[in-house]
Order: sequence, then structure tokens, then C-alpha cells
Amino acid sequence: MLTFTADRTGSQARLGKMKLPHGTVSTPCFMPVGTQGSVKTLTPAEVAEAGAEVIVCNTYHLYLRPGHKRIQAAGGLSKFMGWNRPILTDSGGFQVYSLAALTRVTDEGAEFQSHVDGSRHMFTPELVVEIQEALGSDIAMCLDECPPYPVSRPVAEAAVARTSLWADRCRAARQPGTNLFGIVQGATYPDLRERSARSLAALDLPGYAIGGLCLGEPSEVTYDMVERVTVLLPTDKPRYLMGAGYPEDIIAAVRLGVDMFDCVLPTRNGRTGTAFTSAGRVAIRNSRHADDPSALDPACDCYTCRSFSRAYLRHLFVVGEALGPKLLTLHNVRFFQHLMQDIRTAIEQGEFKSWSNEFLSRYRSSGEPAGQ
Amino acid sequence: MLTFTADRTGSQARLGKMKLPHGTVSTPCFMPVGTQGSVKTLTPAEVAEAGAEVIVCNTYHLYLRPGHKRIQAAGGLSKFMGWNRPILTDSGGFQVYSLAALTRVTDEGAEFQSHVDGSRHMFTPELVVEIQEALGSDIAMCLDECPPYPVSRPVAEAAVARTSLWADRCRAARQPGTNLFGIVQGATYPDLRERSARSLAALDLPGYAIGGLCLGEPSEVTYDMVERVTVLLPTDKPRYLMGAGYPEDIIAAVRLGVDMFDCVLPTRNGRTGTAFTSAGRVAIRNSRHADDPSALDPACDCYTCRSFSRAYLRHLFVVGEALGPKLLTLHNVRFFQHLMQDIRTAIEQGEFKSWSNEFLSRYRSSGEPAGQ
Repeated sequence: MLTFTADRTGSQARLGKMKLPHGTVSTPCFMPVGTQGSVKTLTPAEVAEAGAEVIVCNTYHLYLRPGHKRIQAAGGLSKFMGWNRPILTDSGGFQVYSLAALTRVTDEGAEFQSHVDGSRHMFTPELVVEIQEALGSDIAMCLDECPPYPVSRPVAEAAVARTSLWADRCRAARQPGTNLFGIVQGATYPDLRERSARSLAALDLPGYAIGGLCLGEPSEVTYDMVERVTVLLPTDKPRYLMGAGYPEDIIAAVRLGVDMFDCVLPTRNGRTGTAFTSAGRVAIRNSRHADDPSALDPACDCYTCRSFSRAYLRHLFVVGEALGPKLLTLHNVRFFQHLMQDIRTAIEQGEFKSWSNEFLSRYRSSGEPAGQ
Repeated sequence: MLTFTADRTGSQARLGKMKLPHGTVSTPCFMPVGTQGSVKTLTPAEVAEAGAEVIVCNTYHLYLRPGHKRIQAAGGLSKFMGWNRPILTDSGGFQVYSLAALTRVTDEGAEFQSHVDGSRHMFTPELVVEIQEALGSDIAMCLDECPPYPVSRPVAEAAVARTSLWADRCRAARQPGTNLFGIVQGATYPDLRERSARSLAALDLPGYAIGGLCLGEPSEVTYDMVERVTVLLPTDKPRYLMGAGYPEDIIAAVRLGVDMFDCVLPTRNGRTGTAFTSAGRVAIRNSRHADDPSALDPACDCYTCRSFSRAYLRHLFVVGEALGPKLLTLHNVRFFQHLMQDIRTAIEQGEFKSWSNEFLSRYRSSGEPAGQ
């Protein structure tokens, strides 16, 4: 599924093309998150214009509302939401663990109560594949068990075993043509990560995700786990680090051979008033922007940066106008696509290492401290 | 300021062109409301694409936040908000009466406390003109006294007198080139309406608004008041019925010779899930839309109607996605611009009466009951 060119400067970074039913995706790529079938505040046209070639939607949410059968009857998720490019759906496992009232997890599956109405449901590996196939996902994810951070070794070890068991059942249940990705678990235990990667690699799936990271552990630990896993995964399959969203983490992971990323950071931070810019993060509510006629990011070509001053954007947030969160989201989504484009160009030109060093020195050296 | 052609079929409807500093406006026109310097949920590009040639912003809100001097320093409101077409600002009188904690009204002006932080302020006729000139408004409104509905005759009579007094002071305070409109008051008392209209007409202002209507009184009363006023206003000046937003009210008022309209209905109803369509109003949350693949309004050419099904729009509202309110607002704003375009075409072709009868029979004959 992935054809790629290795980085000529010796890192593990790869430049790839991923052919999917709804289109071809250039990697390394960043996938904006459209949890409930909408990249929050943006139209599909705006997401496409920002340069995104694939987005992530959520099996758990769409299963509950409006229901996968309803979406299937409407012609699939891409058609339903007006996004005529590829969609990756995560399995819903993470949301079952983090959002729903989890009643019981056995080898059979995960029982939970809906966060919407308290109704009882059970996700089995077979059901999550069926749901994702009904949605018409370009990439479907295996049901996994994703422990929180930190977690004890016995819990992490059991999650690795169950994740492998479930991956095997997902694989057996899938229809021909379904691009099913496995998810490597193992928390922050190097040998468990390696065990999980080997076990899943043996299933010969079309792609692999690294789950259970970016949950608050130190960056060095994240990078160490990613490195231990990527060297064990097949080189000709895409690798997806779930939930990594900080530019520095994305660049570090690309360097270790990761091809795909997703995170709520650009959309969530946009809504709460934090912009990612080429000079670092900007908290737009800060009073020092009150009379600033300059663009949010003079290096950006998005509609927000072309059309409005920081003073106006701040005003929108101060008075609570919905246009503020939307314009910052639009910018942030563009910023991440621009970043990935720059990464791809740097790899292509054999300059990834020098480019990333230059980017990081500029990105870290300024900007405002900003909470998430 | 207004050049117009009378309706050839004998109604008072007029087709006009209003030349303003930021551009020419075709009348009859509907002005979307951008209270705080933003037509809620929409970018200025979307408002322009919907066909709006002029919008209404609010002096009271912008005076409080971000402050008119800040906007003046930024180059004026049009530049500040990225809307390079005309802007009408209302005087803030209505908001002082309806929103702020009003402490005292004398002939000198209206004292009030900010609804934001409780700070004390006073709007005088001179100050509201100064604020609107600082904002760079294409059309500025006189400070008026706008009583609620219903109101006793003595209160209405005093408001008419004070409104005339203030209009005279606004006129004296304005800079050359400021397009200052007077506002006719008089509540639902025919003779007071006529007294107010005569008094303001004598000031020879560039345009006239009819205020203090569309506040809940029966439609027949509204129309009666409008008719009594329009016949007394100069024919060569634009007439603006403040707050009229229902298509049937707009059509009735155009027939009586009104040129300009504004209302929060398209934006507010859009945000709360009610769409105006060529077949009447649609409450998009209604479960009967859950599997409906058809467009919100098949007769509409907006992005929402071109791109999404009722089923998807309903989903967005049910799960609380910000895109839902935005897409319905976009449609509603376009619907009203489309309506005004059709009205103008009908007047131009000498078919306004037959067109409006046809429109109203179609518009009223279907659609869902929907609260505001």
C-alpha cells in the first residue's frame, strides 16, 4: 500500500505515497481529527484547501450517533460528510477506555455504557471491523486494549496479549479489500513494545499504528519506544504514531521512520485560542495583541493570515464570537499541513536533518508559553 | 443618495441604487447583522459570497469592546473586520434600552452600565455620532429613544419628542460626509408616528429608519404604521424598517415603499437549527430528517445546499458540532439575499405584485412550525 523513498541523509525518514480507495496520500502526513464526522468548525472544503489528504474519524462516536448503518445507507462516511478524500477510522477502543463508562473487558470484547444515554454496548473485534466497513473507511483500525499512562507491567503485558488476540480476530473478520491496521501496545516497557510489534508484524497487515503513547510520558520515552518498534515493523507498510501532535514530536518521529500522525491539538488549541505559528505558539487572548495589526503568522498563506490582524482575532475571542475559534482552527490545520509539506520537501531534497534542526531552533526560540 | 425606479404595477415598491463610501447597494436590500464586528459564524468572504452588499454592526457593543478608538486606529471597522463593503451602524440606543442596566435617561442623554463589566457610561447624541464616525460607518444612525411594546401614549409621546431633539443634535454634530439617518418613533399611535415622521423629514437627513416596530405587535399594526410613515417621508431618501426579518413582513414593507431591512432572524435561527427555505421553515433537528438525503432547500445555490444532506445537517446539530450552526447560518443568509434579489428582479420586470403573491402562497403553504 505504501511506496516510499528512503531519506538520503541517513535518518529513517521516508517519503511515501499511500494509495487508498478515496485517493492517494503523500506521507509523512498529518490527519486532522473529525471525531463525529466533522473537523470541528471547518467545512470539508476548508480542510481540503488546507492541504489535508486524509482525516481521522471515530468509530465509537459514529457508532453511537448517527449509527453506522445510517451512514452506510447514506452511501458511506465520505459521502455523508461531504469529504471526498480518504478517511481513517480508529477502532473506538481508546474512547471506550477514556470516555464511556467501561463495565467489563474480557477476551471476548469490551462492554461499555454510552456517554450519551447510558445504553449498554459491547465492542468485539468483529463488530468494530463490521462498523468500519459499514462506514466505508479507507483505513480501519483493529480493536486494541490501550492502558493509561503510567501503568503497571502486568496490566501492560495483558493488554499486549489481548491486543494481539483481537488483531488476529479482526484480521479474520475483515472483508477482502479492507485496509486493516494493527496497533502496537506495550506501554513504556521496551520488551513488551518489541513483543507486541513482532506479534503484529507476523499478521502481515497492510499497516501498523503505535498506540498507547503521547499520553503524558516524557518525550525521550516516547521516542525510545517508537524507535524500538519501527525497526521491527515491515519497511514497506505505513507506520502511524497515534496522538502525536507537537511539531517537535512529529519531526522526531518522522526521523525514526513514522509516516502518519493525528492529533486534536490543532483543532482543540484553535478553539481555545492558541495558534501554532512558524515562530512558536501564540495565545491570541493575550492583551499584547489588542492593537497588533500584523498577521497571526506572516509566513502562513491561510485565509486567516491573509485576511485578519491579531487585533481582530483577539477581539473575536474576547467577545466570544464563534468566528474566532474557527479562524484559529483554520490556521492551525493549515500550519500542520504546511509543516508536513515542508518535511516532505526536505526529505525529497535530501535535507531533512538540516531542515529540522533549523525549524526547531526557530520554533523553540520564540513564541508564548501556552497551556493546552 | 438613493436613485430609484418606481414599481410599474402601482405598488409603492421601488428599485434603487444607494451609493455609499464603501460601495453601491442595490435596494430593496437585507442587511445581515454583525453585532460585534462579525456576522456570527461566517467569514466576511462567505457573507459577500451570499450576496450581501451591506451589513449592520452595533455601536453599543463596539464602543464597549474593543472600543471605537481602537477600531479607528486600526483603519476603521471595514478594514478591522475584513469586510470591504458598506457598513451601517445602529446608534446603540436600542441596546442601551434592552441590554444594559439603564440608570437614567434625560434630554441630555442615556446613562447606562455596561452589560460586560458594570462600568458606567453615557450616550449623548453627539457621542454616538462621534463613535460612528470613528468606526467609519457608511451609514450612521441618530440616537433615539425606543420604548418597548406595548407602551402608554404619554411615554411614546415623550420618546417622539426626545428622538426629534436628539436627531437635531446628531445632525448638528456630524462631520460633512456622514450619512446620518433619522429614526421615526411613535410606537403604535398613528398620530405620533406621523408627528415623528414630519418632524424628522424637516431635518432633511440623507435617509430615514422606522424604529420601534417588529417588537411583537400584530403584523397589521406594523404595516399600518409603516404605511402612515412612508407616505410622509421624502421619496428620494432610503427608508429602513429596523428589525423586520420574516419574509412575509419584508415583502409587505417593500410593497409600502421600504428599501432596507435588517434582522437577526437568519443568523440566530440558523444557530438554533431553523432554516428558511423556499418551501417554508425547516426545523433541522426533527427526527424526520434523520435519513433524508435531500438538500435543505433544493432551490438554493449555497454551499450548504450544494454539499450536504438534511441527514448530515441534522447529525451535526444532534451531536453539537459547530459546523451545524455555521452551515444553517450560511444557508439562511443566502436565502434572504436570494429573496431580495428575487424582489428586485420582480420590481424591475413590473411583476412585483404577482411574484409576491406566488411566493407567499408557496412559502406559507408548507414547511414546519418552528419557534424562534
